[in-house]
Amino acid sequence: MILHLAAFTWKDDVTADDIAELTSQLRDMAAQIPELQSYHCGPNLRVRPSPADYGVAAMVEDARALEAYLDAPAHAAVYERLLGRMIADRVAVQLELGADAGP
Amino acid sequence: MILHLAAFTWKDDVTADDIAELTSQLRDMAAQIPELQSYHCGPNLRVRPSPADYGVAAMVEDARALEAYLDAPAHAAVYERLLGRMIADRVAVQLELGADAGP
Repeated sequence: MILHLAAFTWKDDVTADDIAELTSQLRDMAAQIPELQSYHCGPNLRVRPSPADYGVAAMVEDARALEAYLDAPAHAAVYERLLGRMIADRVAVQLELGADAGP
Repeated sequence: MILHLAAFTWKDDVTADDIAELTSQLRDMAAQIPELQSYHCGPNLRVRPSPADYGVAAMVEDARALEAYLDAPAHAAVYERLLGRMIADRVAVQLELGADAGP
Protein backbone atom coordinates (compact mmCIF):
# COMPACT_ATOMS: atom_id res chain seq x y z
CA MET A 1 0.00 0.00 0.00
CA ILE A 2 1.13 3.57 -0.66
CA LEU A 3 0.03 6.66 1.21
CA HIS A 4 0.31 9.73 -1.02
CA LEU A 5 0.58 12.94 1.00
CA ALA A 6 0.48 16.45 -0.41
CA ALA A 7 0.74 19.83 1.33
CA PHE A 8 -0.33 22.96 -0.52
CA THR A 9 0.38 26.62 0.13
CA TRP A 10 -2.05 28.96 -1.63
CA LYS A 11 -1.49 32.14 -3.54
CA ASP A 12 -2.57 35.35 -1.78
CA ASP A 13 -5.71 35.81 -3.89
CA VAL A 14 -7.26 32.43 -2.96
CA THR A 15 -10.59 32.87 -1.15
CA ALA A 16 -12.50 30.79 1.39
CA ASP A 17 -15.05 30.10 -1.35
CA ASP A 18 -12.29 28.76 -3.62
CA ILE A 19 -11.18 26.39 -0.86
CA ALA A 20 -14.71 25.18 -0.14
CA GLU A 21 -15.31 24.62 -3.86
CA LEU A 22 -11.98 22.80 -4.20
CA THR A 23 -12.81 20.47 -1.31
CA SER A 24 -16.16 19.68 -2.88
CA GLN A 25 -14.62 19.03 -6.32
CA LEU A 26 -11.80 16.88 -4.87
CA ARG A 27 -14.29 14.70 -2.96
CA ASP A 28 -16.43 14.29 -6.09
CA MET A 29 -13.25 13.44 -8.01
CA ALA A 30 -12.17 10.84 -5.45
CA ALA A 31 -15.50 9.05 -5.80
CA GLN A 32 -14.81 8.60 -9.53
CA ILE A 33 -11.32 7.07 -9.20
CA PRO A 34 -11.47 3.38 -8.24
CA GLU A 35 -7.74 3.20 -7.45
CA LEU A 36 -8.31 5.41 -4.39
CA GLN A 37 -8.84 3.12 -1.39
CA SER A 38 -9.22 6.16 0.86
CA TYR A 39 -9.01 9.89 0.26
CA HIS A 40 -8.95 12.75 2.72
CA CYS A 41 -8.50 16.45 1.93
CA GLY A 42 -9.07 19.70 3.72
CA PRO A 43 -7.64 22.90 5.17
CA ASN A 44 -4.65 22.63 7.49
CA LEU A 45 -5.97 22.75 11.08
CA ARG A 46 -2.66 24.45 12.04
CA VAL A 47 -2.55 22.92 15.53
CA ARG A 48 1.02 24.12 15.21
CA PRO A 49 2.20 27.01 12.98
CA SER A 50 2.84 25.95 9.37
CA PRO A 51 3.19 27.61 5.97
CA ALA A 52 0.96 24.95 4.39
CA ASP A 53 -2.72 25.84 3.93
CA TYR A 54 -4.21 22.55 2.79
CA GLY A 55 -3.52 18.82 2.72
CA VAL A 56 -4.41 15.65 0.86
CA ALA A 57 -3.91 12.04 1.98
CA ALA A 58 -4.71 9.35 -0.58
CA MET A 59 -4.25 5.60 -0.08
CA VAL A 60 -3.60 3.40 -3.11
CA GLU A 61 -2.49 -0.17 -3.67
CA ASP A 62 0.82 0.53 -5.47
CA ALA A 63 2.77 2.86 -7.76
CA ARG A 64 0.69 1.86 -10.79
CA ALA A 65 -2.51 2.80 -8.96
CA LEU A 66 -0.97 6.10 -7.87
CA GLU A 67 -0.03 6.93 -11.46
CA ALA A 68 -3.58 6.06 -12.57
CA TYR A 69 -5.00 8.40 -9.91
CA LEU A 70 -2.63 11.28 -10.70
CA ASP A 71 -3.18 10.87 -14.45
CA ALA A 72 -6.97 10.37 -14.20
CA PRO A 73 -9.05 12.81 -16.31
CA ALA A 74 -11.11 13.66 -13.19
CA HIS A 75 -7.88 14.68 -11.38
CA ALA A 76 -6.64 16.72 -14.36
CA ALA A 77 -10.03 18.44 -14.61
CA VAL A 78 -9.91 19.69 -11.00
CA TYR A 79 -6.38 20.89 -11.57
CA GLU A 80 -7.26 22.79 -14.76
CA ARG A 81 -10.58 24.18 -13.41
CA LEU A 82 -9.37 25.39 -10.04
CA LEU A 83 -6.42 23.83 -8.21
CA GLY A 84 -3.74 24.85 -10.71
CA ARG A 85 -4.33 28.59 -10.26
CA MET A 86 -4.48 28.35 -6.46
CA ILE A 87 -1.06 26.79 -5.83
CA ALA A 88 1.89 28.88 -4.65
CA ASP A 89 3.76 25.80 -3.39
CA ARG A 90 3.16 22.05 -3.28
CA VAL A 91 5.14 19.30 -1.52
CA ALA A 92 4.24 15.65 -2.01
CA VAL A 93 5.50 12.44 -0.43
CA GLN A 94 4.62 8.80 -1.06
CA LEU A 95 5.02 6.48 1.93
CA GLU A 96 5.27 2.71 1.63
CA LEU A 97 2.83 1.21 4.16
CA GLY A 98 2.69 -2.36 5.44
CA ALA A 99 0.02 -4.58 3.77
CA ASP A 100 -2.03 -4.30 7.00
CA ALA A 101 -2.33 -0.52 6.82
CA GLY A 102 -5.90 0.74 7.22
CA PRO A 103 -7.63 3.11 4.70
CA MET B 1 -9.73 12.17 14.28
CA ILE B 2 -6.72 14.15 13.01
CA LEU B 3 -4.18 13.00 10.46
CA HIS B 4 -0.85 14.78 11.02
CA LEU B 5 1.28 14.81 7.87
CA ALA B 6 4.86 15.99 7.66
CA ALA B 7 7.23 16.17 4.69
CA PHE B 8 10.95 16.61 5.29
CA THR B 9 13.77 17.69 3.00
CA TRP B 10 17.20 16.72 4.26
CA LYS B 11 20.44 18.64 4.42
CA ASP B 12 23.10 17.58 1.91
CA ASP B 13 25.22 15.76 4.51
CA VAL B 14 22.48 13.33 5.58
CA THR B 15 23.44 9.71 4.88
CA ALA B 16 21.46 6.55 4.14
CA ASP B 17 22.55 5.29 7.58
CA ASP B 18 21.12 8.43 9.22
CA ILE B 19 17.79 7.79 7.49
CA ALA B 20 17.71 4.12 8.47
CA GLU B 21 18.56 5.02 12.07
CA LEU B 22 15.91 7.76 12.09
CA THR B 23 13.25 5.36 10.85
CA SER B 24 14.16 2.89 13.55
CA GLN B 25 14.11 5.57 16.27
CA LEU B 26 10.80 7.03 15.08
CA ARG B 27 9.13 3.61 15.12
CA ASP B 28 10.45 2.92 18.62
CA MET B 29 9.20 6.37 19.65
CA ALA B 30 5.75 5.76 18.21
CA ALA B 31 5.39 2.60 20.27
CA GLN B 32 5.91 4.66 23.43
CA ILE B 33 3.27 7.34 22.69
CA PRO B 34 -0.27 6.09 23.46
CA GLU B 35 -1.93 9.03 21.70
CA LEU B 36 -0.72 7.68 18.35
CA GLN B 37 -3.51 5.51 16.89
CA SER B 38 -1.37 4.83 13.84
CA TYR B 39 2.05 6.01 12.73
CA HIS B 40 3.82 5.61 9.42
CA CYS B 41 7.20 7.04 8.42
CA GLY B 42 9.72 6.45 5.70
CA PRO B 43 11.63 7.74 2.70
CA ASN B 44 9.65 9.38 -0.08
CA LEU B 45 9.11 6.76 -2.80
CA ARG B 46 9.19 9.61 -5.34
CA VAL B 47 6.73 7.95 -7.74
CA ARG B 48 6.66 11.51 -9.07
CA PRO B 49 9.53 14.05 -8.71
CA SER B 50 9.47 15.92 -5.38
CA PRO B 51 11.87 17.96 -3.27
CA ALA B 52 10.75 16.10 -0.12
CA ASP B 53 12.94 13.21 1.01
CA TYR B 54 10.88 11.73 3.83
CA GLY B 55 7.37 11.61 5.22
CA VAL B 56 5.43 10.97 8.41
CA ALA B 57 1.71 10.25 8.79
CA ALA B 58 0.37 10.08 12.35
CA MET B 59 -3.28 9.54 13.34
CA VAL B 60 -4.50 10.93 16.64
CA GLU B 61 -7.89 11.47 18.26
CA ASP B 62 -7.83 15.28 18.50
CA ALA B 63 -5.72 18.42 18.88
CA ARG B 64 -4.97 17.64 22.54
CA ALA B 65 -3.61 14.23 21.57
CA LEU B 66 -1.54 15.79 18.79
CA GLU B 67 0.00 18.28 21.22
CA ALA B 68 0.77 15.42 23.63
CA TYR B 69 2.51 13.50 20.82
CA LEU B 70 4.50 16.51 19.56
CA ASP B 71 5.50 17.48 23.12
CA ALA B 72 6.26 13.93 24.28
CA PRO B 73 9.78 13.43 25.72
CA ALA B 74 10.28 10.49 23.33
CA HIS B 75 9.52 12.78 20.37
CA ALA B 76 11.83 15.53 21.67
CA ALA B 77 14.59 12.96 22.21
CA VAL B 78 14.55 11.81 18.56
CA TYR B 79 14.58 15.43 17.47
CA GLU B 80 17.57 16.33 19.67
CA ARG B 81 19.52 13.10 18.97
CA LEU B 82 19.13 13.01 15.22
CA LEU B 83 16.18 14.57 13.38
CA GLY B 84 16.95 18.19 14.27
CA ARG B 85 20.34 18.21 12.51
CA MET B 86 18.98 16.46 9.40
CA ILE B 87 16.24 18.93 8.47
CA ALA B 88 16.74 21.47 5.69
CA ASP B 89 12.97 21.99 5.32
CA ARG B 90 9.79 20.68 6.96
CA VAL B 91 6.14 21.17 5.99
CA ALA B 92 3.36 19.85 8.21
CA VAL B 93 -0.40 19.69 7.79
CA GLN B 94 -3.14 18.44 10.11
CA LEU B 95 -6.27 17.12 8.40
CA GLU B 96 -9.62 16.71 10.14
CA LEU B 97 -10.88 13.19 9.34
CA GLY B 98 -14.40 11.84 9.77
CA ALA B 99 -14.95 9.73 12.94
CA ASP B 100 -15.01 6.64 10.69
CA ALA B 101 -11.47 7.19 9.36
CA GLY B 102 -9.28 4.11 9.60
CA PRO B 103 -5.77 4.16 11.21
